Amino acid sequence: MSDQLRRLARLPLRDNLRGLEPYGAPQLDVPILLNVNENTHPLPDEVREAIARDVRACSASLNRYPDREFTELRERLASYLGHGLAPGNIWAGNGSNEVLQQILQAFGGPGRSLMSFPPTYSMYPLLASGTDTRYIAGSRAADFELTADSAARQVAERAPNIVFLCSPNNPTGTALGLDVVEAVYAAGEASQAIVVVDEAYAEFAKAGTRSALGLLPGRERLIVSRTMSKAFALAGARLGYLAADPSVTDALRLVRLPYHLSAVTQATANAALKHVDALLANVEDIKAQRDRIVAELRRLGLRPAPSDSNFVFFGGLSHPARIWQGLLDAGVLVRDVGIPGHLRVTAGTEAETTAFLRGLEDLLAAESDAAPR
Amino acid sequence: MSDQLRRLARLPLRDNLRGLEPYGAPQLDVPILLNVNENTHPLPDEVREAIARDVRACSASLNRYPDREFTELRERLASYLGHGLAPGNIWAGNGSNEVLQQILQAFGGPGRSLMSFPPTYSMYPLLASGTDTRYIAGSRAADFELTADSAARQVAERAPNIVFLCSPNNPTGTALGLDVVEAVYAAGEASQAIVVVDEAYAEFAKAGTRSALGLLPGRERLIVSRTMSKAFALAGARLGYLAADPSVTDALRLVRLPYHLSAVTQATANAALKHVDALLANVEDIKAQRDRIVAELRRLGLRPAPSDSNFVFFGGLSHPARIWQGLLDAGVLVRDVGIPGHLRVTAGTEAETTAFLRGLEDLLAAESDAAPR
Repeated sequence: MSDQLRRLARLPLRDNLRGLEPYGAPQLDVPILLNVNENTHPLPDEVREAIARDVRACSASLNRYPDREFTELRERLASYLGHGLAPGNIWAGNGSNEVLQQILQAFGGPGRSLMSFPPTYSMYPLLASGTDTRYIAGSRAADFELTADSAARQVAERAPNIVFLCSPNNPTGTALGLDVVEAVYAAGEASQAIVVVDEAYAEFAKAGTRSALGLLPGRERLIVSRTMSKAFALAGARLGYLAADPSVTDALRLVRLPYHLSAVTQATANAALKHVDALLANVEDIKAQRDRIVAELRRLGLRPAPSDSNFVFFGGLSHPARIWQGLLDAGVLVRDVGIPGHLRVTAGTEAETTAFLRGLEDLLAAESDAAPR
Repeated sequence: MSDQLRRLARLPLRDNLRGLEPYGAPQLDVPILLNVNENTHPLPDEVREAIARDVRACSASLNRYPDREFTELRERLASYLGHGLAPGNIWAGNGSNEVLQQILQAFGGPGRSLMSFPPTYSMYPLLASGTDTRYIAGSRAADFELTADSAARQVAERAPNIVFLCSPNNPTGTALGLDVVEAVYAAGEASQAIVVVDEAYAEFAKAGTRSALGLLPGRERLIVSRTMSKAFALAGARLGYLAADPSVTDALRLVRLPYHLSAVTQATANAALKHVDALLANVEDIKAQRDRIVAELRRLGLRPAPSDSNFVFFGGLSHPARIWQGLLDAGVLVRDVGIPGHLRVTAGTEAETTAFLRGLEDLLAAESDAAPR
């Protein structure tokens, strides 16, 4: 038992936290960080200037509580999303994790359940546990695909109160067809399930992929969550948001802490949203690197999953832990998501991607040389 | 039933939220806002410049997730608090509400209870409800005082898992003696109660008032929470924090959302903490206005509670709702906290305080003229 756990054991912790260690990827000091699906392109100078200018302006009233309704931000987010959405459809929090937690606080809790389909975003069961919501793990096909029939059948059988569909899915990277969302929503009718489509990586989807935003009209129990962390290159600013029927945003007002979004966060996000084109300019570069990774991994005999995100999940590794360590030794940090034979890598800049691919190729070659012995 | 409630009623809200309306003071556009205990002095220019400069610097890496451990901020907060505290004793969140919510997530929840002593900060029962923690309302004497004997006896009888002591208390303004904290801590031994002293207004206490920070050594279940919203004039930046045994901060790491404090929030708070003297320069002015309000209200025949905070709670009003409206009509917004015969007013700048006192005196005179009819 570590010193930390020994100290914790002396405190009157709630039962479902006993023996746990804090969640989070290792914060290692490595030259090339391709482990947490950040946008590795720094913000364009014009956006940095706009943020500094707008934060300076908002500091004149920083002694006052912020606009609890973050009115300007909801207007700008609605306008960015399009699809006929209005500010009343929009909600935001300190990262999409907080937005998802608020959904569980409003619609989950003791006696209620959340269902998702692992392997998927690893925070879902933790958010369920933190709100005393029972977690139901659905299943996927062996290739990690999730069909409309399978998802709908599982939802009908388990009757969860909330379903989280991650699309594009983390860690596999693949987007769901809207038929899956429609089928899950229909199957959730009986249990009045709230259906959340977590589109954190939506901007990286392949051309022609349709967002679940288009399904919102007429579906009061449907929520589409987004983030400014990825395509907008603002992971450090912590701004997650969602679009839904206005009754859903009213429900979230019942559980949000008053003034949960600081004036500085609002100013930063608003400044960025004045420069959408500049911010999204790197998205096509990242998609090109992502496609390059998929092609190269195939050439190396590995099995990359189809990716609509800024990362690639790949199988076919005999010793993923060894490859992970070898890449780290070469200055490249990727993510071991704990799935046998697989690793996950973020698509970085061209130079970062090259470093990863070269390092991996060297390690695979060394492994293959070593194999006959 | 309002349209909002009608829409909400169609959603599968959890049971303890049904029929509720969102918490929060009205956001009215009034010239003089003395209703939410803000520091009405804007930030000094040198602090505004420092914030703009440091946010601009941090924007270079805003594409990356922030330091999950907010290391520099914990160092600066420990250094500000003194009392031999180290970074391992410090935790922070997006406002002290979030910090208090995390305490409930770690030590409260289903089957557990939170006790506080109304009238006190009205968010406590809401935070309990949001985390499915049973709320126990203790009692105070008729003059709102809370003695060590009474508090300890109530804690021993009710055996709560968590106790929140607000000192100086909101809305009454009065600080607790450390004997109350010591007695409650001792009485909570049997139920292993976590005892939180919410010192949001500590910097405004009368000279010689001792902080519960001095009681931390040897008390693993004691937590002292603070905020940068009040004395530091940073309500808009949302930075609450606490000091406690390192095992407590480890426990909070189990329930915090990863990266809950944005890089921009960290940069803003760090910039302000480089200018503590400039920020706290207004505290003595505010205390002088607070003492002036107390003296003037006494002169007007009202009953102000002794105040160690930046606000004054006063009784002796025959028609508080009418006075509240009359002040609003005169451009001064104060707070009706729902206690018969009482109102609460924030100590503002000298001019704001004068406007409040003149407005009140006029209204009381008009009421007294009207009384015989």
